[in-house]
Amino acid sequence: MTRFASRLDNVQASAIRELFALLGKPGIISFAGGFPDAALCDAEGIAAASQQAISRYPMVALQYGASEGFAPLREWIAGSMSSPGAATEAARIVVTTGSQQAIDLLGKVLLEPGDVALVEQPTFLATIQAFRLYGARLIGIPTDADGADVDALERLIAQHSPKLVYLIPTFGNPSGGLMTQERRRRVVEIARHAPQTVFVEDNPYGELWFDRPPPASIYSVAAADRELVDRFVYLGSFSKILTPGLRCGWMAAPADLLARAVMVKQFADANTSTLAQVTTYCYLDSGRLPATVERVRRVYSDRARAMGDALDAKFPVNSLRFERPQGGLFYWVRVAGDVDAPKLIRAGVDRGVAVVPGSAFYAEQPDAQTMRLSFATAGSDAIEQGVARLADAYRELGGRPS
Amino acid sequence: MTRFASRLDNVQASAIRELFALLGKPGIISFAGGFPDAALCDAEGIAAASQQAISRYPMVALQYGASEGFAPLREWIAGSMSSPGAATEAARIVVTTGSQQAIDLLGKVLLEPGDVALVEQPTFLATIQAFRLYGARLIGIPTDADGADVDALERLIAQHSPKLVYLIPTFGNPSGGLMTQERRRRVVEIARHAPQTVFVEDNPYGELWFDRPPPASIYSVAAADRELVDRFVYLGSFSKILTPGLRCGWMAAPADLLARAVMVKQFADANTSTLAQVTTYCYLDSGRLPATVERVRRVYSDRARAMGDALDAKFPVNSLRFERPQGGLFYWVRVAGDVDAPKLIRAGVDRGVAVVPGSAFYAEQPDAQTMRLSFATAGSDAIEQGVARLADAYRELGGRPS
Repeated sequence: MTRFASRLDNVQASAIRELFALLGKPGIISFAGGFPDAALCDAEGIAAASQQAISRYPMVALQYGASEGFAPLREWIAGSMSSPGAATEAARIVVTTGSQQAIDLLGKVLLEPGDVALVEQPTFLATIQAFRLYGARLIGIPTDADGADVDALERLIAQHSPKLVYLIPTFGNPSGGLMTQERRRRVVEIARHAPQTVFVEDNPYGELWFDRPPPASIYSVAAADRELVDRFVYLGSFSKILTPGLRCGWMAAPADLLARAVMVKQFADANTSTLAQVTTYCYLDSGRLPATVERVRRVYSDRARAMGDALDAKFPVNSLRFERPQGGLFYWVRVAGDVDAPKLIRAGVDRGVAVVPGSAFYAEQPDAQTMRLSFATAGSDAIEQGVARLADAYRELGGRPS
Repeated sequence: MTRFASRLDNVQASAIRELFALLGKPGIISFAGGFPDAALCDAEGIAAASQQAISRYPMVALQYGASEGFAPLREWIAGSMSSPGAATEAARIVVTTGSQQAIDLLGKVLLEPGDVALVEQPTFLATIQAFRLYGARLIGIPTDADGADVDALERLIAQHSPKLVYLIPTFGNPSGGLMTQERRRRVVEIARHAPQTVFVEDNPYGELWFDRPPPASIYSVAAADRELVDRFVYLGSFSKILTPGLRCGWMAAPADLLARAVMVKQFADANTSTLAQVTTYCYLDSGRLPATVERVRRVYSDRARAMGDALDAKFPVNSLRFERPQGGLFYWVRVAGDVDAPKLIRAGVDRGVAVVPGSAFYAEQPDAQTMRLSFATAGSDAIEQGVARLADAYRELGGRPS
């Protein structure tokens, strides 16, 4: 019998994975995915960029590369993160195999059994699992639609001296929430008095705003102070604005942490696909990104409105609690009143609509009445129909307005 | 001060990395790389495959994918590994971000502090480091040009009950050695009596044979016994025959191990770039691989001969000990007699030739008189000239025939 490492005891096959097994059902309308709509990708532009990558940079794109990443891509990323008065240098950037890898590298260089990491309640499922695989104890920060509760954050830091704090302040997965500018500034102030803690801002959704751009990133607020920023880490991704197919993300981090992350990346996958990196760079260099992002924002904004309108129209008043997201891909919904959310989710699958149970997104004390609905991949008509099916399931289960 | 995880104390920035910093010198002839020659890649075929990937499979190539990998690619890989009487099913395959990731996943699912892993002396540097990051204690198996010493292997297994045994039996890095058919069979027999040990065969170089194909893989010998093969793992790679730029490798493993590897991969990088996977598949499907591999073999064979001839011609008789490799990318050379190899390597850099010190490739008791010379990326003339420079350095240091 193979003896597996005990670190595996800290995680379990995801509840979402089990749900996905049900999704093969014909005709199902899925709000369950955590991914963008591949049909919105600029396939033509990406194809052209991959040709250019091979014709312009064959000895880079077809060879192993530095674990840090392709230098022109690192330069581009650093430039995109710089703001007036706060430059980010390419030397702070490592290109990662999706930002998922950055999460894994952070766990590997920082976390060991018994260490505490603070995460929002709810937060990204794969972060919980990645950190637990390194033995960390995850403690949840109370969070609302305006982001993490900063007073609670301050108390939890004093209480636990965590190795790291992990936040998705902008259109978070699954919460869809947006941390206010005031709270972002408070996080930076709190960091001043927590010298043993690394603050991680994961921002894969920031470009997907609807009516107005979100407040400046926590990282850019911290970057105004050259010493303080050395305890801040920023994770970015091209998956939601360009394509998930290239698996190109990045981490901005201080020199000591970056050197260690690059070393462990060397032994994790040597380097992120050079062809993918150079293709990404050629795409960025082509100048097509702004128009693509503009188009993607408009589509998601329309779908978000369709989903909000349908939830309002199809469900009884006060049967659901949710805020309309200002960007990103998700509605985070709490089922109020007299219907059990897990039962509703199962009944929804029977009626041909899939959503994700919210419990999986909690590091502790899950709220079983929550669920995540993605509006990313269904058109407005399908959204309306899917929500109607879920509302039918709700009534079938005896749901009444509270 | 950031508190890093103590697992980092088990590794150090590689000696090779430090050497590479010296390689910027103009006019240097490098035998130091561990990589294939990117100029031998079928750039045109890869570019065509990446176009096809996007035009034929846009919703796969531009989207997230299953952590296991793209199903048609897994099928192709399984087919390529099957042999008469021993089929390998696609269900045993996970596509990895280079075979480096497979090594990392194996460490993560199997190794914990105090566990023993057996590796050849010398072996692949990044395997040593990857396994040490999970706290494993690495113990070396005495190895010669015919592969690991199987009697020693049997003794070491009895003594240490290792979690895993890691072998590169075919044109290994750095040894260039080729394990005999007889020893391969012995490994499988030894496994029969070591039910708590997983046997890993890493085979990135197997296709790069010169005059005749190597003996059947250890995995395929084990695969004739459906129960026994469940303790064998095989790592493959497209990096040396197609391009390292796609970062596509794979692992074949039994169901219990595969399920855990796929789970931890989900939290390590979600999936290997789908565009890279589909591009790889489209290339394989195009039928161009056999001709490419044929061409690559011929070039490396010529370069290997050029290097062997130059080493024989330029160095005094008996000053070096090496076997001519029958495939792969490397000469493994021991400096005999009265010259200190680390000094020779430094003097070589001064004279414009770079090789890699062998010490870094030992898990324990390094032999400082060894060095690795790659013939992969220099043409025959440059090989002759580089070896001549190294021989000049040898004489400058007072080297005499022993």
